[in-house]
Amino acid sequence: MNEIQLFCPATIANVSCGFDVLGLCLESVGDTMTVTKTPEKGIRITEIIGADLPLETEKNVAGVAALALIEALDPDFGFSISITKNIKAGSGIGSSAASAAGAVFGINHLLGSPLSTKELVQYAMQGEKLASGTAHADNVAPALLGGFTLVRSYDPLDIIAIKSPTELYATVIHPQIELKTKDARSVLKENISLKKATIQCGNLGGLISGLYTGDYDLIGRSLHDELVEPVRSILIPKFDELKAAAIAAGALGGGISGSGPSVFALSKGLTTAKRAGQVMAAIMKDTGIPFEVHVSAINPEGIKIIHVQ
Amino acid sequence: MNEIQLFCPATIANVSCGFDVLGLCLESVGDTMTVTKTPEKGIRITEIIGADLPLETEKNVAGVAALALIEALDPDFGFSISITKNIKAGSGIGSSAASAAGAVFGINHLLGSPLSTKELVQYAMQGEKLASGTAHADNVAPALLGGFTLVRSYDPLDIIAIKSPTELYATVIHPQIELKTKDARSVLKENISLKKATIQCGNLGGLISGLYTGDYDLIGRSLHDELVEPVRSILIPKFDELKAAAIAAGALGGGISGSGPSVFALSKGLTTAKRAGQVMAAIMKDTGIPFEVHVSAINPEGIKIIHVQ
Repeated sequence: MNEIQLFCPATIANVSCGFDVLGLCLESVGDTMTVTKTPEKGIRITEIIGADLPLETEKNVAGVAALALIEALDPDFGFSISITKNIKAGSGIGSSAASAAGAVFGINHLLGSPLSTKELVQYAMQGEKLASGTAHADNVAPALLGGFTLVRSYDPLDIIAIKSPTELYATVIHPQIELKTKDARSVLKENISLKKATIQCGNLGGLISGLYTGDYDLIGRSLHDELVEPVRSILIPKFDELKAAAIAAGALGGGISGSGPSVFALSKGLTTAKRAGQVMAAIMKDTGIPFEVHVSAINPEGIKIIHVQ
Repeated sequence: MNEIQLFCPATIANVSCGFDVLGLCLESVGDTMTVTKTPEKGIRITEIIGADLPLETEKNVAGVAALALIEALDPDFGFSISITKNIKAGSGIGSSAASAAGAVFGINHLLGSPLSTKELVQYAMQGEKLASGTAHADNVAPALLGGFTLVRSYDPLDIIAIKSPTELYATVIHPQIELKTKDARSVLKENISLKKATIQCGNLGGLISGLYTGDYDLIGRSLHDELVEPVRSILIPKFDELKAAAIAAGALGGGISGSGPSVFALSKGLTTAKRAGQVMAAIMKDTGIPFEVHVSAINPEGIKIIHVQ
């Protein structure tokens, strides 16, 4: 076992009322990555196709995550990583997380899986720290574990995999404007009312309950973000119209994907998810801003092994 | 069917990280209530045994809840209500909720159940409004529906019944000091940090996830209240010691029951729940404050019909 080829999925963090705690994994959007054992120790990023990203290990999210892992496991050899990026950097669907998660997953697998997938989260988070300044887990956890994940706690790190119903589909529209995580953070209010926090808790509880019981209507009723969406959505062109149109087209609800600029909707069934994509595309087309639309099932397993040799 | 006798259970609201949204129903602590059809229209409270509470319908929580219900259903006859109170008023385990919930449940049953139990919540809430100034649902919902309940939203009212594992037991210690809901509310801060709200959301998500999956350890890890317990617990003598002792005795975690002064712990298994009660009792005994300890399974059905004739 010298080389592993992986599908590294895109992810939606925050998930409306799940701000900073919930994330989900996409099935049909993602990068591919090849991790190869090398006789020389250390980590080398050999190639990045499809994106203009640094190849220096210490400046690359996959590189930094991989370094954190080999520092802990101390193998007698090294690894080279080549990445084909399909997830656009800055899109808000976990581009950096896919690379960081892929790197640690691949290396761990080539070492005979000394760590559980859940244990890899903390190393992948180091890639996120490089990308956004914060070692957050809300994209790398669903990328690694699949499905919906909850970050119950960071101190200590406690990631919970949450069951989700099989007919749930995500639609993502990515308006290709630049919106840095840092800027999206800066609009947030440091303090909020206890009342709003309570409303958020009610909705988060409803969403998680709906996921466990497969109650799509409850999932839809719960997709309200009291805390962040009202302030952050002003940075996203046509946000209110996009969300309203998706819901009018039958989607259960939606919100900002990660810290934006992508907007997501969740639907019961592929047909509705596609229709939500069409109506959102029609709105975005009018603005003249280039965009992409993704429609995807929820990916129940996370990173997929394409090939091992 | 002219008369119904009911067991009206005590409840724990707030449930730590579930502040203002979660409640649970107790099995072995509660009042009994008899509701009887009368030829005269209206509601009469005929007797309250075990507590010094007003008999005037408009000043009695059962009376007010019953009035709200008959105003909606407009039956051709009336009802008399007699109550034997075992739940002490002001104890923080839903004394008023038990009466309000019992009254609307009994009347609805005698009318042939025109409303679902869930639909009764909004009428029982009127009793809570009289008792505490706020028409809250976090005690009446679990009293009516049993198990754990989530108030997802008040506008519109949306109550979610949450599955809970069968070996979960509650221990409640009630120090018999007076602590008015109003006073317990007044110590709360109007604004909180977004960071603390996020931590609360993580724990609430973990608790609900643990309830659905029967993961007792996760339930325990999640029983942290960032928002209210730190400020409200100063009103409860020996709170920190009580909670720590219960956990040291094997309880999963605990917190303030409702707005206090009762303190609750949750445990896996009756033996541990009893042990938690013993260690909490030992601490309270030292203070000289009179107290009661209740150990109870979670009541999965809520109000129970003892007898109908």
